[in-house]
Order: sequence, then structure tokens, then C-alpha cells
Amino acid sequence: MSRFFTKRLAKLTPYTPGEQPRDMQYIKLNTNESPFPPSPAVIQAATIEAGRLQLYSDPTCRELTDKLASLYGVAPEQVILTNGSDEVLNFAFMAFADEDHPLVFPAITYGFYPVFAELNRIPYEEIPLKADFSVNYRDYLNLGGKTIVIANPNAPTGLCLTLAEIEEIVRTNPDGVVVIDEAYVDFGAESAVTLTDKYENLLVTQTFSKSRSLAGARLGFGIGGKALIADLHTVRYSTNPYNVNRMTAAAGYAALCDNDYYMQNCRTIMENRAYTTDALRALGFEVLPSLTNFVFAKTDKMSGEALYLELKRRGILVRHFGKAEITDYNRITIGTREQMEAFIATVSDILKEL
Amino acid sequence: MSRFFTKRLAKLTPYTPGEQPRDMQYIKLNTNESPFPPSPAVIQAATIEAGRLQLYSDPTCRELTDKLASLYGVAPEQVILTNGSDEVLNFAFMAFADEDHPLVFPAITYGFYPVFAELNRIPYEEIPLKADFSVNYRDYLNLGGKTIVIANPNAPTGLCLTLAEIEEIVRTNPDGVVVIDEAYVDFGAESAVTLTDKYENLLVTQTFSKSRSLAGARLGFGIGGKALIADLHTVRYSTNPYNVNRMTAAAGYAALCDNDYYMQNCRTIMENRAYTTDALRALGFEVLPSLTNFVFAKTDKMSGEALYLELKRRGILVRHFGKAEITDYNRITIGTREQMEAFIATVSDILKEL
Repeated sequence: MSRFFTKRLAKLTPYTPGEQPRDMQYIKLNTNESPFPPSPAVIQAATIEAGRLQLYSDPTCRELTDKLASLYGVAPEQVILTNGSDEVLNFAFMAFADEDHPLVFPAITYGFYPVFAELNRIPYEEIPLKADFSVNYRDYLNLGGKTIVIANPNAPTGLCLTLAEIEEIVRTNPDGVVVIDEAYVDFGAESAVTLTDKYENLLVTQTFSKSRSLAGARLGFGIGGKALIADLHTVRYSTNPYNVNRMTAAAGYAALCDNDYYMQNCRTIMENRAYTTDALRALGFEVLPSLTNFVFAKTDKMSGEALYLELKRRGILVRHFGKAEITDYNRITIGTREQMEAFIATVSDILKEL
Repeated sequence: MSRFFTKRLAKLTPYTPGEQPRDMQYIKLNTNESPFPPSPAVIQAATIEAGRLQLYSDPTCRELTDKLASLYGVAPEQVILTNGSDEVLNFAFMAFADEDHPLVFPAITYGFYPVFAELNRIPYEEIPLKADFSVNYRDYLNLGGKTIVIANPNAPTGLCLTLAEIEEIVRTNPDGVVVIDEAYVDFGAESAVTLTDKYENLLVTQTFSKSRSLAGARLGFGIGGKALIADLHTVRYSTNPYNVNRMTAAAGYAALCDNDYYMQNCRTIMENRAYTTDALRALGFEVLPSLTNFVFAKTDKMSGEALYLELKRRGILVRHFGKAEITDYNRITIGTREQMEAFIATVSDILKEL
């Protein structure tokens, strides 16, 4: 740290992304990426834009915004595109949370929420999960003006609230914004986008990183009431109006045009998730019932960290979190059937050798 | 504005990007883009990465960072890559400016500085330019811990401080960070990067948008002492660790490998700038001596706004700013020789028809 670093950020603990070691080729099941490449139309669209990079991108992302709005059945004014969904979440925290509207989120969830809060000097409260790692939706009713953020499905647990439970949270908090982070919604959960017309205090965020194979392009979005979205645009135009580059905007548009390809990939991942869940349970693991592209699992036979390290030594990366409540677990991204069979075979070997 | 927008941002006036009208094809001299496309190697590199977009980008941007460091003669730990140079500027404001270290910048400069300051609740002071629109470097000496931001060359004037003057500012402010925004440095000005080894309080920011024809890719960077850069990485990892996407990182790397092509383009733009300056002066314009890829010019024969509007009606976009002190002027991006000849012919016609 330099002696110039502002005191108000001196205690900031940055988010730690999943490791990307370069010492060898791994089966990479640690950052919830899709095992499927983008469709050919995406590559073609990005290539065309690469030839026009001397020109700024369209700060309104008009074609992509219109296409997305049409696909999700909302008005274009209900949509904001961002440099990954981290950016729309950060914008929402800046726009809607403050001392009088502190943040509230589950104690076990996406690790970025407390970091954004600290960066933006916003007080926050963490609500413990139930013993089974599920979110108790009743904890989030009638919070009177607080800003609620819920990842649904939640990470790294993979567990989900029902749409009725989400609606109850939104309905009983008319004076606070409710942000539903649906990064993983395309793998079997129900989206709250359908509620954004009905509730002016609801913001739904999603990403192209997982279900649409665009993690490396950085593209996220928010859908909400027009007034909420206008506020997010105000913040966007005050930080980085050209936040989405030309190639990514074109790639996103092409991906939406190829929606069937991506939805088929999601179904394949859900099948591979069922296979992985069953196989891990057959090996004695406890596996939370996931509606995402990962599973969260533990075994009584070895610690979470020991399993993570042994898998890494054998060329398979999964994600282990140090946090005490979940240190027994590993988060395993669902890849191709071949990758998951290799993973299960390796886990089986490791357990046998104990 | 929604009723949920935080009070502390309610007065925020976002930055207004240059217009991108779609009603007809314009000669676009309003956003300081390069008239030259990226080199073929850039397009190829971006295309290869487009096929791997299912994987997250490297949050360390290692290859690009190493290449850039080597080209600029600094250590990789002295470099940070960002989503456009707006992002590194925003990070620097967050990291180094606060109530005890208010921002200081010229009253006429890049319009984003006061917006970033307001967004981040940082007090700021604007120092008037001299009557000839130049920055008086003596105004920035010995400011005792304030955070100084100077665009050099300045925008929209195009005027420059010498390296000796910049060094004097950095040397006499050992307790404050001095940010030199060199977005336009490759068009004839001297860079302060050579001072970053000597002064721990100096941060230099640059962009690939202008001289390297990558405005639409969004790629900027900061170079400074290792401790300053470490602080900026802390902020980056607390907002958007994957801030630079795969395609853009690869495009930037390829652009650095093709440095000769881009430096030749800069020389061509400098020649076209000389042509444009001479031709405008021959038409009676006052033109500030620019070291950028634009000129700032006014005529006594009509108002800045009237000329801007008449040019737009005739298919040529330039940038007019409403601010009272510079409302007589227009900022004209330097394009190809053909574009500038068309511009001069049109201006000449407009003046004749008065």
C-alpha cells in the first residue's frame, strides 16, 4: 500500500477471483464457466466489429438492448447493459443504498456484495442462512427501506427461493429496492423478470457469462422498472458511458439470435449436473440440490481443503472457500459429460486411496 | 429519477458523450477517434479470442502488461490495464482523493473529472486557465497534499505543458498524488512516463483509443510507482477484477506488436493537423496550437454553435461545448487528408454564404 492510499479504503479486502494457474493444463471446474464455446455467429459478429475498433462503441447499446428487451418481454427502457453483471450490481449499490438504506444480504452468498459495500461506504447487514444452507425468505419481509440483495439461485450453495417467495419479499418492501442477482437462473430456476412490470422497487440482474458462454467478453444486464433503470444509466454515464465495447455488444446480440443453441447447452449442463450429483452421492457425498451450473458438496471422509488440493494435484480445479461455515465443502462447476466422468473417477480414486 | 435514487447522487450531472446520430452518414470529427482502422494483426488476435469467450479473461492481463511495460521501459508492477482510461482515472480518484486530499484540476479540461469527483463524494477545486487558454503550471506548485489532475495535452484546448513544468509540479507536491492524463500524448507531446521511476507520487494515464485505433475496444492504462499501482489494483479487484475482456486484451497486445503502423498513423495525423490549422487560419480562424488529434478553433464571423449546426446540416460533425468561456470555439478531430479537405471546403462555403 502506498502512503497516498485513502484512509477510508485502507481496510478494504478485495474479492479473490478463482485461480487461473498456468503451470499445467487443468480440467477447470472452479469458476462456473460454460464448457461450450460461443456459437459461430458470435465469433463472426465479434470479428466484424474488430475491424471497426477505431470507432467508439454505441453508449446506448441500442441493437442489443432492443433484442434483449424483446426476448425478455420488457420495454428497452427497462434494460441496462454493463461490463459484466458485477458492474450493474456495483451501479445498483451506488444508486440505491446509503446510510439510510443499508444493504441486507445472506451471510453466505456472492463474495462481492460486502466488497462493493465497503468500497462505496455503505453499511450492510448479513443474515445467516438456515441450517440447511437455504435462505429463509421470511427474514427479508418488511425491512422498511433497506436495500435487499439476494442471489437466486444463491452461490455457492446453488439453492433457490421460489418465485412466490421472491414476490413476497418485493411486495413487503415497497420503500426499498430489492435486487435479485440471477447470474445462474438459466439452469432451471424461475426468473423474477416477469415481476419487473408490477413492482417499481425490483431490479433483476443477469449475465451472459454462464449460460451464454461469454465470460471472457464481460457482458451483464439489469432489468427493472423504467425509473430504476434511468437511475442506473445516470450512474453509468457518470463513470464509463462506453462501458460495453463494440465486440462484446455484437457478440451479445449474436448470442441472443442463437438462443436455441445456448438453451440446449443449459439442458445438457442440467443433465450433467444430475449425473454428477447422483455419482457424488453414490460415493457418500452430501450434495446440495442445485439449480445452477455447479454443485456444492462435502464428504465426511476428508476435509474440503484436502480434497481440493488433491484434485488440483491430479489436474482438476474446483473452488474451495476458506469461510468457516462452508469450509467442509467444495464448489464444482458442471462441465461436459466427459469432464464430469473424469472428475468422478478421480474423486473415487482419491477416496479409495485414503 | 426514481424515488429510490440516493440523495447524495440526486444532483449528479452525468457526462455527455459526443453525439452519434443515425439519421445520415456523417464525416465524424466530433469524438477524437482515429480515422485509421486497427491493423490486420489486431483483428486476427481478437477473432482468435472470440472463439474462447466461454472462459474468463486473465484478471492480471499478464501478456499485455509485460509487453506494455517492456515498450515503455518500466516494470510490469508499474502498470495497470483498465476498461478505457476513464476507468483508471476513476480508480485513481477513489484511491487517492478524499476530504483531506481534494482534487485540483483546470477549470477547462476533460469534463469527466468533476463528474467522477461528485460520484465519489470528493471535494474539488477548479483553477482557471490563463487568458490564452494555457494551464499556468505555477498555480499547481506546492499545494501540500492535494490531488492534482492535469490532462497533458489538455482537452479541448490541445495545449501542452513541458515535461520540465510537469516535473516541477510533481516535485513540489510530494504529499499529494499528481495524475497526468496523457490521452493525447502520442501526437507530438512529451510523456511523463519517464518520471514515474523517480517520483512515487506520479501516476500517468494513457489510452489505446486515439493513437492506437481502439476506441471501440475500451482499453486504457496507468503507469506509476509500484505502490501507487498496487493501490489501484486493490480498487480494481474490489469492483471488477475481469475489467478487460479477452478480445480487447489480445487486440491491445497485437497493437503494441504493430507499434510502427500506429506511430506512422500519428505522424500522418500530425501532418493533417498542420494542413487543417493552416487552412483554418487562412480562412480567418483563430486556432490554438495543438499537440493532439484535434484542433480548437473559432471565427469572428459566426458563433461556435451556429458553425457547428451548419456543419452538421451539411454532414460534418464537430464538437461544440456549451460552457460560456469556450462557447465561441469548436473542437475538430483530425481525420484523413480527404476528410479535412472536405471539412475545409465546407467551412469555406459556409463563410462565403454568410
